[in-house]
Amino acid sequence: MSEYNQDKLIQDVVKAFSGTPDARLRELMTALVKHVHAFAREVDLRPEEWQAGLKFLTATGQISTDTRPEFVLLSDTLGLSMMVVALQQARASGTPQGALPPTEATVEGPFYWAGAPDLELGADIAEGVPGEPALYMGRVTDLDGKPLAGALLDIWSGDGDGLYDVQLSDEPTMKARGRFRTDNEGRYWFWSIRPTFYPVPFDGPVGEMMRACGRNINRPGHIHMQVSAPGHVKLTTHIFVAGSPYIDEDAVFGKRDSLVVDFEAHPPGRAVDGREMETPYHSASFDFRLVPEPA
Amino acid sequence: MSEYNQDKLIQDVVKAFSGTPDARLRELMTALVKHVHAFAREVDLRPEEWQAGLKFLTATGQISTDTRPEFVLLSDTLGLSMMVVALQQARASGTPQGALPPTEATVEGPFYWAGAPDLELGADIAEGVPGEPALYMGRVTDLDGKPLAGALLDIWSGDGDGLYDVQLSDEPTMKARGRFRTDNEGRYWFWSIRPTFYPVPFDGPVGEMMRACGRNINRPGHIHMQVSAPGHVKLTTHIFVAGSPYIDEDAVFGKRDSLVVDFEAHPPGRAVDGREMETPYHSASFDFRLVPEPA
Repeated sequence: MSEYNQDKLIQDVVKAFSGTPDARLRELMTALVKHVHAFAREVDLRPEEWQAGLKFLTATGQISTDTRPEFVLLSDTLGLSMMVVALQQARASGTPQGALPPTEATVEGPFYWAGAPDLELGADIAEGVPGEPALYMGRVTDLDGKPLAGALLDIWSGDGDGLYDVQLSDEPTMKARGRFRTDNEGRYWFWSIRPTFYPVPFDGPVGEMMRACGRNINRPGHIHMQVSAPGHVKLTTHIFVAGSPYIDEDAVFGKRDSLVVDFEAHPPGRAVDGREMETPYHSASFDFRLVPEPA
Repeated sequence: MSEYNQDKLIQDVVKAFSGTPDARLRELMTALVKHVHAFAREVDLRPEEWQAGLKFLTATGQISTDTRPEFVLLSDTLGLSMMVVALQQARASGTPQGALPPTEATVEGPFYWAGAPDLELGADIAEGVPGEPALYMGRVTDLDGKPLAGALLDIWSGDGDGLYDVQLSDEPTMKARGRFRTDNEGRYWFWSIRPTFYPVPFDGPVGEMMRACGRNINRPGHIHMQVSAPGHVKLTTHIFVAGSPYIDEDAVFGKRDSLVVDFEAHPPGRAVDGREMETPYHSASFDFRLVPEPA
């Protein structure tokens, strides 16, 4: 081998993975090796930088727990999580010609908790939670705009201080979570609070990286939902609050313009669903369009 | 933003890092982001693969200790460590026209231990250590072949069972380590054992990866050294044993053809340095050529 032959080194590594029995794993490792080496050569990676990188990765693993997945946060803040979402949705949705575009997906985030209570349409999932009340309403349809009756919305939200139930205690009880089914006209409506911006966990290695890079650590206000209906691909997405601080610099790149919704301000009085409000409140309207499952 | 716009996502992430105050960190993060995303798109990364990857990285961090740097092992087995060595040596050595090529560097590995004893030329660093005796000898020169007197060789080796002192006990004492200085003619010679192949640690996530990929986990027999002399760039390298098992499939890609040395077999008797050997032994000759320090 000729001296300092970096191309030969990369060939040797790829060759070492060429016997991987599983074809997909072989494809993944081969591509990974090529990009790792291309990165190192492109930046002419220094030994002290390489060491700092390995130290960062080690610390990221060591701070991780089941409820604090720091590598997920790293993936989020590098935009990788959102790329995986975008790739998944691109695969799922061969949008038929002439159909409406499906609702965009975004990151699930770390706070989903299966088993939220099944509630009647119009119920308030945020009772006793700080924040300004907000009525959410709209329809779930297919890509032709046809209403989907009995579609399931599994909703979760931070409170008006930007905190999720699981962050409030070591033994949390569910708050600001609920499951709703659309009526015969595909309609849904429920009450919660208008969510606010909040920072991603910033006391670990990823927070250190964000500070060193002068990055915003906040996510704009949003509410999460999984929306599903028989014969359709389950959608995991958010509604974002128009005008929220950080709306154009989401720390995890989850914001999509098509998911940003105006929250209309109302004085106290009777809301459109008949509820009598003694305080000012907001309302937000959003329709979800689901992709048909592949045949 | 148009839907599913993956290019726009990558631009947004790069833009988020564009305010990084330190220019080099900005360069590193920008290149990292581009390669991470290029990898994900190239392989059309699936959510379950993404999750498996994050789980692997978390486990790699969690098994790590000061004496078990699993991310170093990951870097080694992906050839990245060797690439960093190759890049470093390529930077250091604008080999002058007509000069001899410098000795190739290779990985330091995890077993260097500063403070090995200073020994007289001809001493045996491997007393009481299992393995077949071997005499090492040669010269340290500059790139014109001019001997470097007083050059320092800091040597460390596994034993004849493939184990290093630090692996033998939780409170190890130094074995098979020593520091020598070349004589006035740039010569060195010392005794140790002929090193044998050994496996990299394979009971962790990296071992699991190696098995899943059908990879050889062994390194061929080699002895480590740092070689330094005033006015020259310190060299970290190995001598490899010609014909050792796994010589052509080093698990960490550290082997270089120019570092492979024939170990000559000798019957009992007087060795060339005058030592009387009662058992068969080996001898290995190798000259080190050091790069001048940049002006």
